[in-house]
Amino acid sequence: MAAFPLPPGSTIGVLGGGQLGRMLAEAASRLGFDVVVLERDADSPAGRVAVRTLVGAYDDPEALKALAEAADVVTYEFENVPAASLDALASLGVEVAPGPKALSAAQDRVDEKTFLGAHGVATVAFAGASTPAEAAAAVAKIGVPCLMKTRREGYDGKGQRWVEHVADAEAVFAALGGRPVIVEAPADFVRELSVIAARGRDGAIVAYPLAENHHEDGILRRTLAPAKASPALSEQAERIAAKVLAGLEYVGVVGIELFELTDGRLLVNEIAPRVHNTGHWTQDGCEVDQFEQHVRAVAGWPLAPARAIAQVEMLNLLGAEVDAWPKFAAEPESRLHLYGKREAKPGRKMGHVNRVKPLR
Amino acid sequence: MAAFPLPPGSTIGVLGGGQLGRMLAEAASRLGFDVVVLERDADSPAGRVAVRTLVGAYDDPEALKALAEAADVVTYEFENVPAASLDALASLGVEVAPGPKALSAAQDRVDEKTFLGAHGVATVAFAGASTPAEAAAAVAKIGVPCLMKTRREGYDGKGQRWVEHVADAEAVFAALGGRPVIVEAPADFVRELSVIAARGRDGAIVAYPLAENHHEDGILRRTLAPAKASPALSEQAERIAAKVLAGLEYVGVVGIELFELTDGRLLVNEIAPRVHNTGHWTQDGCEVDQFEQHVRAVAGWPLAPARAIAQVEMLNLLGAEVDAWPKFAAEPESRLHLYGKREAKPGRKMGHVNRVKPLR
Repeated sequence: MAAFPLPPGSTIGVLGGGQLGRMLAEAASRLGFDVVVLERDADSPAGRVAVRTLVGAYDDPEALKALAEAADVVTYEFENVPAASLDALASLGVEVAPGPKALSAAQDRVDEKTFLGAHGVATVAFAGASTPAEAAAAVAKIGVPCLMKTRREGYDGKGQRWVEHVADAEAVFAALGGRPVIVEAPADFVRELSVIAARGRDGAIVAYPLAENHHEDGILRRTLAPAKASPALSEQAERIAAKVLAGLEYVGVVGIELFELTDGRLLVNEIAPRVHNTGHWTQDGCEVDQFEQHVRAVAGWPLAPARAIAQVEMLNLLGAEVDAWPKFAAEPESRLHLYGKREAKPGRKMGHVNRVKPLR
Repeated sequence: MAAFPLPPGSTIGVLGGGQLGRMLAEAASRLGFDVVVLERDADSPAGRVAVRTLVGAYDDPEALKALAEAADVVTYEFENVPAASLDALASLGVEVAPGPKALSAAQDRVDEKTFLGAHGVATVAFAGASTPAEAAAAVAKIGVPCLMKTRREGYDGKGQRWVEHVADAEAVFAALGGRPVIVEAPADFVRELSVIAARGRDGAIVAYPLAENHHEDGILRRTLAPAKASPALSEQAERIAAKVLAGLEYVGVVGIELFELTDGRLLVNEIAPRVHNTGHWTQDGCEVDQFEQHVRAVAGWPLAPARAIAQVEMLNLLGAEVDAWPKFAAEPESRLHLYGKREAKPGRKMGHVNRVKPLR
């Protein structure tokens, strides 16, 4: 086992080679760390700024062994890493952060909401179901309309459907593949917010200011941050973040998606055990961004301040929208972040732009 | 020849694998570019965040050929690249920025000061010499004490000596290796300043606020920026930068070292045709740092604003000073930048820290 804090020159292993891994690698480079990526694609966005790519699946025993040998600590950019891979890395003597408790809570929507409830964090009403009959019972219990989602996997709006009538429950269950599901009551929210927070190996916690998020078809389009928020709302978000991070014995950055209700209460929608798209504004809006913060946490360094220094509007560039880069490059207030993806498939996250203004 | 502006996904070749190349690679990654490094050392600071290192000397024809094939544009982090290498790259059909005119002016101290004088930019009085007798004549002309420096090479205070007596001229000339030299009058300066500026492929110019620099034994220890400066002083620096950049038909970021005289005039001490140690403060003190600015310029993108958003004290971490990283990592106002160098030799630049305060 490596001794923490890891000195500069140590190697950070990253499971996953996408844009989050790339931006983690940029931050790790600034702090003098080397990065090794484990990824199926030999030519990935993160791999191109890493010392080395170990080409393999996240559950490839040989690749995991090579990663454990190369890395002083391992993290991930993607929550659907098999839990068994984290176990394998741990048994090979390398620490993984965030740890298995955080990963498993985030991988299963029923476990996630059960964990939150047990720690005094409010969510929408929910019920699990593993058979058509259970699905019908769950829908009857929660009421319609309600949302049926697969318990595991699914992101950016995939793997979920609305149920409008109790009689449709079994058909929707079948349409989602007949896999275990969660049935959720709709949240009567006025805004979608998120809080990006971090917990260090010493247990210290910092939370970035609230971000206001706008989704289309389940995909994040736009973040405004710091969001307009009363001190009470900000404190409520910080308390939620602290409960989640402490409850998961978390090390690293977490993204917590929130619903703000008409009465001012916040419900947790989802926990992402990693740096998060709604935290990209921190790159140009905060003294230290979520990527450096995550590297600091997993390396056992002290956390850095999470204060805002500017007002940011973050726009995701999806698919061919990235072709507008010359326009954004010419805007004095726009900071471009592009991911180096070779192909601009429709809906694919190709980059983002942070439009920066002085703090209001 | 590549067409400019280079789209994201293009490859930027960098001659040199040190910390400047590393920080250029970090910036290039943010903008979606790939980086290929040409460097003797297969395990260099820049190479570890590049797609690929071509291992070879800067004048290795095979390595230059491979670089020309891989890169859409080539730049350098080090001004002692052989001029013939730039010619070779140009003949292989790849654009190099900054161009040969800038490189040759910066490589020879007599050519540099002659260029400056021809463009109405003041320097200290100087004379060139290539033989012992010429050296004696040059010292007699300039007067003592004066500084004798090799015309070419030499950095961080190496390759230069003070001449206290006219009679010592030939001995100092011999001690400097009997190579061509420049003899310079001392500048009676009150401060050492620098201006970091950039020129785009469209001829647009931006200049960062003045930085105040403190050297010890010829090595930069500390930069304070933006420096306290009257509008007239800032304008004088901007005019100098504009003359230098236009005169050299420059593309990229330049570092111009200045002496501020008691009467308020600025003399140019030295031009570095690359990103510059006295510009490291821009990473945490400006909206867009010198590294992204350089990448934008060489890629033919529009330049970005060079405004300051914070007051910065930049400290170089030399040799074993880098061992104090835990102290800096724990300071809320300090942003660490470490270079990933394997060995902390005495005096070696291992990293820097930007201590950030609100703008005064």
